Amino acid sequence: MSKPATPVSPPLKDELDIVIPTIRNLDFLEMWRPFFQPYHLIIVQDGDPSKTVKVPEGFDYELYNRNDINRILGPKASCISFKDSACRCFGFLVSKKKYIFTIDDDCFVAKDPSGKEINALGQHIQNLLTPSTPFFFNTLYDPYREGADFVRGYPFSLREGVPTAVSHGLWLNIPDYDAPTQLVKPRERNTRYVDAVLTIPKGTLFPMCGMNLAFDRELIGPAMYFGLMGDGQPIGRYDDMWAGWCTKVITDHLGLGVKTGLPYLWHSKASNPFVNLKKEYKGIYWQEDIIPFFQSVAFPKDCTTVQKCYIELSKMVKEKLSPIDPYFQKLGDAMVTWIDAWDELNSAAKKDASASASAS
Amino acid sequence: MSKPATPVSPPLKDELDIVIPTIRNLDFLEMWRPFFQPYHLIIVQDGDPSKTVKVPEGFDYELYNRNDINRILGPKASCISFKDSACRCFGFLVSKKKYIFTIDDDCFVAKDPSGKEINALGQHIQNLLTPSTPFFFNTLYDPYREGADFVRGYPFSLREGVPTAVSHGLWLNIPDYDAPTQLVKPRERNTRYVDAVLTIPKGTLFPMCGMNLAFDRELIGPAMYFGLMGDGQPIGRYDDMWAGWCTKVITDHLGLGVKTGLPYLWHSKASNPFVNLKKEYKGIYWQEDIIPFFQSVAFPKDCTTVQKCYIELSKMVKEKLSPIDPYFQKLGDAMVTWIDAWDELNSAAKKDASASASAS
Repeated sequence: MSKPATPVSPPLKDELDIVIPTIRNLDFLEMWRPFFQPYHLIIVQDGDPSKTVKVPEGFDYELYNRNDINRILGPKASCISFKDSACRCFGFLVSKKKYIFTIDDDCFVAKDPSGKEINALGQHIQNLLTPSTPFFFNTLYDPYREGADFVRGYPFSLREGVPTAVSHGLWLNIPDYDAPTQLVKPRERNTRYVDAVLTIPKGTLFPMCGMNLAFDRELIGPAMYFGLMGDGQPIGRYDDMWAGWCTKVITDHLGLGVKTGLPYLWHSKASNPFVNLKKEYKGIYWQEDIIPFFQSVAFPKDCTTVQKCYIELSKMVKEKLSPIDPYFQKLGDAMVTWIDAWDELNSAAKKDASASASAS
Repeated sequence: MSKPATPVSPPLKDELDIVIPTIRNLDFLEMWRPFFQPYHLIIVQDGDPSKTVKVPEGFDYELYNRNDINRILGPKASCISFKDSACRCFGFLVSKKKYIFTIDDDCFVAKDPSGKEINALGQHIQNLLTPSTPFFFNTLYDPYREGADFVRGYPFSLREGVPTAVSHGLWLNIPDYDAPTQLVKPRERNTRYVDAVLTIPKGTLFPMCGMNLAFDRELIGPAMYFGLMGDGQPIGRYDDMWAGWCTKVITDHLGLGVKTGLPYLWHSKASNPFVNLKKEYKGIYWQEDIIPFFQSVAFPKDCTTVQKCYIELSKMVKEKLSPIDPYFQKLGDAMVTWIDAWDELNSAAKKDASASASAS
């Protein structure tokens, strides 16, 4: 019995793409229509490319299936995962916009405690367009929100903040639990609406979930590689974690911010914990070594761009993590391929843009 | 028109003291009666010792004025501030309990969004009795709360957490702003109830406010020194900040946790921003050097107790901060005096306790 969502003015309409990985018809977009329709969608179809994915009428989109990925990237397509939502990062690669919002197709519009539908994209945009504060903790959370500020004792020299590279949103209903926790707590639902956005401090890693995520592609795009997962790989469900660890050490090095908290969306369906356990079990023990590795990452001073940091990181991954499993040798190589692909498509895009600009 | 507060069972009744610094009659306790009456109060009377501070009937308390402080500590009384709420730490010194809750006398019972009166002390106790997670960020906040857990990607080896040393609560209505922010935003009120408790990550400093604070005296007590402020000192309103910086670097070194968030209380009265500016202005520019100093503090491995860390810290303060102002030489000395007083009173207390135990 909630009120119909009021139409919103679409901020960043021409500067943001919504990236959706999927294997099914995108009926879930109906509920998001008032919020997403003004934006351009990039749909990455996973699995069988001969299947048709239906998109509700009225949306502006481009759709890529595996054949498209292979055609566009050629041999470099090997770095894009198959049969895993990690394929979403192909959408980040081909986007020509400054900002990305990516969402899973089992996520719906959530309501705030007053019953109002939450404009998740609007909140992400607000998070990205206001600074972050990674160097000192503000006890009243995001100091840039209305009604909040920096508290007594917050150094004035740090109150300008730093540019925000990532906005990590959360989920009501089905929480993002690993398979063991799903098995132990099959009925647990997240009902707690925490009305906060906060910067994850410098030097602190976090588990980044890809379900409800926005970022500034110009600031951090090349680090948003979701790794080798799914078909033919020994691991799944660590795609977003991998991207999160890489992203956080690079944003820390470059003096950029990562926010988490609002917005919530409604995560409708728990995935199968038995299937998840099979995908995750190597990750569950590997991460005990991977996380200390990331906690110890330090980049040389000449790593002044995301690309340079990422190439440096790929070397460290091969050197320090391949003793755990030969998989990390392959992953390190794929990280380099990803950057090659990024540079190829994005410098070409720039050329196209300047060509069409000079032609017009 | 709220319901009367239901009586609560008093957890930790014999293991917790409530410390209140004051210069006036403690009528504010009437509102806290359902929550505080089972506990022992330690009242530290600031200012003129000939004045009588009235305590509402039915409370169990001990009260110390300046004459008492001088009598009990002798020459060591020099480390306890006068005419500043920093004097509250005398209460921490003379307590014989494991836990402390300290609150300002202009703070009242707040209500949660459902209109229910918040048992601030009960929430602090819950925060202190559940572990902290300083080594990795959990995006669903405190994983030990009901309905929450560690999210996917949280390392299993870190899920036991570490002991919680400090619980830092917040304030509705008048936010804890510095004088410049008070002057710029005289009408700003904090109306946002953020339903979260979270661990402040290792390596991150925060502005600790003494208005609504609880801690484990056995784990961190000797670091809870509120410095030299007020009468005869060049600075005020940095007492809790000082304690917070010292506490955080020591908890980080010792592998203990600091939580912030719930509980809220109702902060009724904004202090005078002009008076505050006079007290704060040296702190406002000193902190630009003090915070980088604390960010760089590293203790030697043999600093295995809070006392050893604190003595080491006093040496660093004298060496690194006294170039800013000779005040830090005096403060470094007072830090040593404080530890002397702590050890004297607390080993004596232990002797008393064992003496009376053997006598009974």
